[in-house]
Amino acid sequence: MAVNGVVLSVDLGGTKVEAALVDAEGAVLARTRRRAATGSGAGTAELRSAVQSVVTGALEAQPPGCMVEAVGIGSAGPLGTVADTVFPLNLSVRDFPIVSVVREIVGEALPVSVGLDGLCIALAESRFGAAAGVSASVSMVVSTGIGGGIIINGVPLLGEHGNAGHIGQLRVSTEESLESATVGTLESIASGPASVAWAQRQGWTGRTGEELGGYARSGDKVARAAIERSAKAVGQALAGVCALLDVGLIVIGGGFSQVSDDYVELVEACARRAAVLPAARTMKVVRAALGSDAPLVGASLLPIWASVRVQAGVAGATRR
Amino acid sequence: MAVNGVVLSVDLGGTKVEAALVDAEGAVLARTRRRAATGSGAGTAELRSAVQSVVTGALEAQPPGCMVEAVGIGSAGPLGTVADTVFPLNLSVRDFPIVSVVREIVGEALPVSVGLDGLCIALAESRFGAAAGVSASVSMVVSTGIGGGIIINGVPLLGEHGNAGHIGQLRVSTEESLESATVGTLESIASGPASVAWAQRQGWTGRTGEELGGYARSGDKVARAAIERSAKAVGQALAGVCALLDVGLIVIGGGFSQVSDDYVELVEACARRAAVLPAARTMKVVRAALGSDAPLVGASLLPIWASVRVQAGVAGATRR
Repeated sequence: MAVNGVVLSVDLGGTKVEAALVDAEGAVLARTRRRAATGSGAGTAELRSAVQSVVTGALEAQPPGCMVEAVGIGSAGPLGTVADTVFPLNLSVRDFPIVSVVREIVGEALPVSVGLDGLCIALAESRFGAAAGVSASVSMVVSTGIGGGIIINGVPLLGEHGNAGHIGQLRVSTEESLESATVGTLESIASGPASVAWAQRQGWTGRTGEELGGYARSGDKVARAAIERSAKAVGQALAGVCALLDVGLIVIGGGFSQVSDDYVELVEACARRAAVLPAARTMKVVRAALGSDAPLVGASLLPIWASVRVQAGVAGATRR
Repeated sequence: MAVNGVVLSVDLGGTKVEAALVDAEGAVLARTRRRAATGSGAGTAELRSAVQSVVTGALEAQPPGCMVEAVGIGSAGPLGTVADTVFPLNLSVRDFPIVSVVREIVGEALPVSVGLDGLCIALAESRFGAAAGVSASVSMVVSTGIGGGIIINGVPLLGEHGNAGHIGQLRVSTEESLESATVGTLESIASGPASVAWAQRQGWTGRTGEELGGYARSGDKVARAAIERSAKAVGQALAGVCALLDVGLIVIGGGFSQVSDDYVELVEACARRAAVLPAARTMKVVRAALGSDAPLVGASLLPIWASVRVQAGVAGATRR
């Protein structure tokens, strides 16, 4: 299937669901964009209603002369063990049948593809953003959580069930000192909330990641240390990722990556120091280019890859 | 290129280089197998001579009526930054031009492919061994070093320069206690020599991984703890690998994985405990099936993949 018209993109996250029409150049048609709250307490019925309201709204705003050719759905992970469902860890709903919920509105004729939100961001950055023109890259988000997506030889790496890219679940150690060594997953150490919690344990009295950034800029040493600690853990994980996947370019986005002007540079320096292989010591870490559009833009690219995979006879997580 | 005849396989490691003819069913033709020592002190000339002697020897033993159709070379990593060279970290030679060294003997007509030894093992186990019939698997070796290879959707994951699979360079922490927490790469913590060194630091007086296994079987608590520590670190790393790659089957081989009858079971239990995603908690860890034949068998499969990649127009580390 060649996507010549527009794609209906859906982005299901822990706090909100969005939908919009996206054209073949990766432009989100602004007047079609709809948003509804989700929230960890939402049940299946509420989530269904939220998804259907944004999808209906986006389709109703479809400009004349523009044809929806496919649907791409990005979701917080993981994808469900039941086909065409999702199981976001930060929502209380299990095996949410997102494809059938969307199909109730769009019908059976359109191809519908599902992928992780981290993969969507990687697809978007790889096609239109900071990794454009590069054959192998990892794009990641450092925010409330830490996730990402992997592109190798220009092709998205999906894994067995479409759940590849959960970089936040690599294990790292902060190495601060033997007395205070924190051992856990990257997400549990380096996310925004984890960094705020660490600073608070050191006596810092602020409450949010944004405040952490402001305090650090004003010279607060604990706030700055919390930021450097996060960057160090991300760098440590990335050194491992580059060794495991032989990828030379990392793109970092997400709210907490903006906590400091030099956050991405700190990560790159730490990653290179932690690297063992000569090639990994030259890895590049750059800032994401697409911002909050990336999940919707990337979701619009999922149908292309689903089509490629069907033509190639490869089974996977995206299905028609 | 369909490989109907036999493939000349070469396996270049830190202590030895081997060559043999391998048939399409993955059988190493025993009478063609040749071996020469390498060693970390060897210079380019000595290494060249060792490679040429085993290649010449294997070809001279070629049975009548059998045709060599391709050459596959597996090498300790990483592959060099210069095309068709290798740069094994455990040899003193840099950018060793392995392809041209082999071509001096086999000529220009045969396709010659190069890949990491870890990838070769993964290809062999995936085609003929413990991961046969499974679309996504990681095969790894726990020995003097720790390395591996990755198969996703039945296709080897090469990375940008063919160096994907360096699982030993993921970071882990042993979590033993805050006082003795060891932070470093998986290889630096869990390899055979690292495990022996740890046991010695606890007062154990043996010298080798094999002795460690014998002492543990006899009830020595430190030796047993060293083995469990290695398995725990491997499991921790694998939990991250499964989250990052969405791979459900891990194959473990290598000398140190045989240190204890339950080593693989220990790794699986630790990996599942360390996993965050529901799917990762059901990952399977199994023992390698092919043993010391795996590198040569896997090298014989490299030309097939090089051919697939050339047909698909994909650039990569294996070249004709």
